[in-house]
Amino acid sequence: MSDTNTEKSVGLVTTQLMKIQLPAGGLKLENGGILPELNVAYETYGALSSTKDNVIFICHALSGDAHVAGYHDSSKKNVAGWWDEMVGPGKGIDTNHYLVICANILGGCKGTTGPSSINPKTGKPYGSAFPKITISDMVDVHRLLVKQLGIDHLAAVIGGSLGGMQALDWTIRHPEMIDRCICIASATSLSAQALAFDIVGRDSITSDPDWQGGDYYGTGHPPHRGLSQARKIGHITYLSPEMMTKKFGREKHNNGDTDSSFSTDFQVESYLDHQGDKFVDRFDANSYLHITSAIDEYDLTERFGSLEKAFGPIKGKVLVVALSSDWLFPPEQSVEIANALLHVGKKVSYCNLQAPHGHDAFLVDIKHLSEVMRAFLPWVGTIQRPPISTCLEFDHIANMVRPGTRVLDLGCGDCDLLSMLTGKNNISGIGVDIDLKHVIKAIDGGHDIFQADIDAGLAMIPDDTYDYAILSETLQVVHNPRFVLKEMLRVARKGIVTFPNFGKWSHRLHLWFTGRMPKGDSLPFEWYETPNIHLFTLRDFVELCQQDGIKILNLVCITTGWFNKLLVQLGFRNLGADRILVKITRNDSAENQ
Amino acid sequence: MSDTNTEKSVGLVTTQLMKIQLPAGGLKLENGGILPELNVAYETYGALSSTKDNVIFICHALSGDAHVAGYHDSSKKNVAGWWDEMVGPGKGIDTNHYLVICANILGGCKGTTGPSSINPKTGKPYGSAFPKITISDMVDVHRLLVKQLGIDHLAAVIGGSLGGMQALDWTIRHPEMIDRCICIASATSLSAQALAFDIVGRDSITSDPDWQGGDYYGTGHPPHRGLSQARKIGHITYLSPEMMTKKFGREKHNNGDTDSSFSTDFQVESYLDHQGDKFVDRFDANSYLHITSAIDEYDLTERFGSLEKAFGPIKGKVLVVALSSDWLFPPEQSVEIANALLHVGKKVSYCNLQAPHGHDAFLVDIKHLSEVMRAFLPWVGTIQRPPISTCLEFDHIANMVRPGTRVLDLGCGDCDLLSMLTGKNNISGIGVDIDLKHVIKAIDGGHDIFQADIDAGLAMIPDDTYDYAILSETLQVVHNPRFVLKEMLRVARKGIVTFPNFGKWSHRLHLWFTGRMPKGDSLPFEWYETPNIHLFTLRDFVELCQQDGIKILNLVCITTGWFNKLLVQLGFRNLGADRILVKITRNDSAENQ
Repeated sequence: MSDTNTEKSVGLVTTQLMKIQLPAGGLKLENGGILPELNVAYETYGALSSTKDNVIFICHALSGDAHVAGYHDSSKKNVAGWWDEMVGPGKGIDTNHYLVICANILGGCKGTTGPSSINPKTGKPYGSAFPKITISDMVDVHRLLVKQLGIDHLAAVIGGSLGGMQALDWTIRHPEMIDRCICIASATSLSAQALAFDIVGRDSITSDPDWQGGDYYGTGHPPHRGLSQARKIGHITYLSPEMMTKKFGREKHNNGDTDSSFSTDFQVESYLDHQGDKFVDRFDANSYLHITSAIDEYDLTERFGSLEKAFGPIKGKVLVVALSSDWLFPPEQSVEIANALLHVGKKVSYCNLQAPHGHDAFLVDIKHLSEVMRAFLPWVGTIQRPPISTCLEFDHIANMVRPGTRVLDLGCGDCDLLSMLTGKNNISGIGVDIDLKHVIKAIDGGHDIFQADIDAGLAMIPDDTYDYAILSETLQVVHNPRFVLKEMLRVARKGIVTFPNFGKWSHRLHLWFTGRMPKGDSLPFEWYETPNIHLFTLRDFVELCQQDGIKILNLVCITTGWFNKLLVQLGFRNLGADRILVKITRNDSAENQ
Repeated sequence: MSDTNTEKSVGLVTTQLMKIQLPAGGLKLENGGILPELNVAYETYGALSSTKDNVIFICHALSGDAHVAGYHDSSKKNVAGWWDEMVGPGKGIDTNHYLVICANILGGCKGTTGPSSINPKTGKPYGSAFPKITISDMVDVHRLLVKQLGIDHLAAVIGGSLGGMQALDWTIRHPEMIDRCICIASATSLSAQALAFDIVGRDSITSDPDWQGGDYYGTGHPPHRGLSQARKIGHITYLSPEMMTKKFGREKHNNGDTDSSFSTDFQVESYLDHQGDKFVDRFDANSYLHITSAIDEYDLTERFGSLEKAFGPIKGKVLVVALSSDWLFPPEQSVEIANALLHVGKKVSYCNLQAPHGHDAFLVDIKHLSEVMRAFLPWVGTIQRPPISTCLEFDHIANMVRPGTRVLDLGCGDCDLLSMLTGKNNISGIGVDIDLKHVIKAIDGGHDIFQADIDAGLAMIPDDTYDYAILSETLQVVHNPRFVLKEMLRVARKGIVTFPNFGKWSHRLHLWFTGRMPKGDSLPFEWYETPNIHLFTLRDFVELCQQDGIKILNLVCITTGWFNKLLVQLGFRNLGADRILVKITRNDSAENQ
């Protein structure tokens, strides 16, 4: 968040080639294949810090390459890297602070060894002789590169789609190397539908007579028709249906080239043709086959037995980002990653960005993604944390929370309460909130936060995970207060609930004498626009607790004015209290504060 | 709803062939082509009534045919028609009551003239000489069949997907012939995404060298590879992603036939291969090209200028059915049809069936679809309408509604109120409700009903469409009561609202003395589970009306007991009334009761 240099490009860059020093016998691949030689193409942006603690490794997706940002030719400034809007001075991944590395993946066709590379044994391109590869192989190759560059620690590993799969593999298999992992629009394995699209896409290539079993190099006839068709199918899946309608709808061109071959005048056909044509000029069909096969076979559950086992070794913090309109890697798959991380007690934040462009959104809908990346990446340089706001209620809550405990804040907002408790009570906490703005601010404050609707329950949290769960001014705005209370006392041993007391004498009097719904400091809204959709009194709450086997350990009445304080002191708490603050536990709980 | 014969099949049937008597010069097609000869393959089930008023025409989808129900060979009872679960004695389309006709479409390959038929001019199959066809051509051909069968009126025309497009075309262009239209999982034009899938599918066929420009008949090498690939893409789009995961997930077989051709062990690949292989045995590639092209070019807005103009001529009732998990013809497209019909004042019902199977659901998720079809189809035979329930409140509402007017009931439930008003006040009404169970019952009662969330607004209804809009015990359960009031007075000149009065003395007293949230006859729920999320008093309501320019024309207090009645008589309405019933209008409205 440097004030100067915002929106600048990293400028002129070049892709470099590194010949990796391999052990005698070459690089052994996971599926048994061996590569006698290995080259890796990579780019870097920004400068290495003296302590080498500022390196970010970006993992690219299926058709990406090492060229993330800037441009290769000063005369063609418009041909920028694939994530130029994200990576640069003052951008989401700020090259004023970080040294950013990106490298072409194993099996690719942009410099790193792949099926179109020369096989040293034959002096000809590998073609059908290129061995099967996995995503772990891709990561191993990049790890060799990083080591050879003299770097043994990554401040963050970041990737979207296939890049997210690599980022998870990095973080799982090299936990000691990785401080932070950002996994965007990705999954622990492809869905059946995404598999199906890949299968049909590969089928297009391998059924193209020009493919010739993979040995088409030098024939002058690569399988362009098949590769183009695979790319067209891919492009349909990368865009949300809404964006496809917005971009093309049913618009037609009328250049009169429609013929009996059943091509149409629809703009969407020209678009797909264009995407197909462009792709065959820059990509290799065998690379497409090998990389999509590796994606299809990636399956953390199959490989490790369960996601919990897979994520067990992770040491760093993880940010899981879903994109709202992505149907190829739908948000549920990101939720699955985040839930599993939470289940094994890892430090994880999850958010679902409103992004209209479908799966492509991680390349296109940059604004919110930049914000959340910048918020999550470690503070570098002179940036200061925002001051922590507090209030009387927070002080009471702090008094109820034992220092050094684990706290869950349900409906946490910006996590001001967690910030206060972290500073004052040295707790470790996590928040849950449905509002993205709050989520980004909370991440910015260094908190773990989960974007979720607490009305839907807390399935992502195992029983008894936290010492305290807090519902601060939240119970009255949820749809199922009884269910939410039950869930909070399932996941935490104790609960702290604050709510406005509808039983206060002034509310009663207001209703009695004016015949209108009460309003006041604790109930500031008109009846027709209040978010407080379940009003209740202290006594109502106490009776629900009795009914549901909830024990009240501590009860604080928050009041204003001497008269209300007197009422409370005299025992008329339901008459005097503006707000209530209770600490509760299950009746069957062994603990009793 | 016959008690006997349920779940029986129509039994052994045969496809019949009708040579259509054409005018001299043959059949002129919409795009200028001419067919000198025309055969139509069709099947019928059930018997024609003496007044010929019981004929239902079913329009089949892309890969369907005339064989809807029963079986062709008594030894192969398991090879049933494509909608055998829907059509038969006692089923959704009950052949005890109706004569059901279905015919293969023009351009098909199951008996009706298509590209594989013999061109009388050459004595060889048409192949590339087959003219371009449209969906209106398909309907015209079926209309010729129906006429030649001596039928000039259809009790209903029904179709899903492409069949729904035909059903709309029938109803628009032959309004005098059609009593009812059921349009399932269809659209007034394909979305850009669906177009894109069709484009890639056709591309697979035409890029298969065996296609040979369409003249492959007799070569012994039809373009199986291309047609199979098109079918695979189609099958992915017919299933919901959830169902694909449920059916296949990432399951693998291990029959060891994986080779270097990049095929996988995933079950989903075997499934797609199987679907492709099955399809090429029963379908013709040129038919696939012609029919999908006709689907792609179908566009009611383009053809008629607007949907409103397209639907203007319709005389019958229309039922529009969306399928919740359909992403090829998503529910929004059905909503668009229903909204446009409502906009031009047609009798229309809309519902969104919870159906997990995606677009295929209209063939598979039969239960709810059968219910709603049976409810919508005209009552035939001895079936009796259910008795209409009523209550005191209904009587008051009846007194407020002028006979012969148009009434909209928001949150209508089973439409009991509309039934009563129809019988007593001779109104014509329509209901809106979000609950499918209510919707089906309302349709069953002969009402038009729209399945929608009134909190989202009433965009489907133009300004001043109704004389009255009613919110009976609904205002307090919506999220945005102010917005809903505004919307109701936009679409109707007058509103009738009933709600529980939180200002009643007993509620006040209850809160005052017990310090608990009031309960009673009009507020029967506990605070933590009440659907009444916006509580308010008579006075609150009156003040909101003043604030928002709403004039109260009439106000009825519904009370119980002599004391409450006395209070109301003395003018203490906010103290005495249990429930309130008000008739309102906009202040700027010219009318005044």
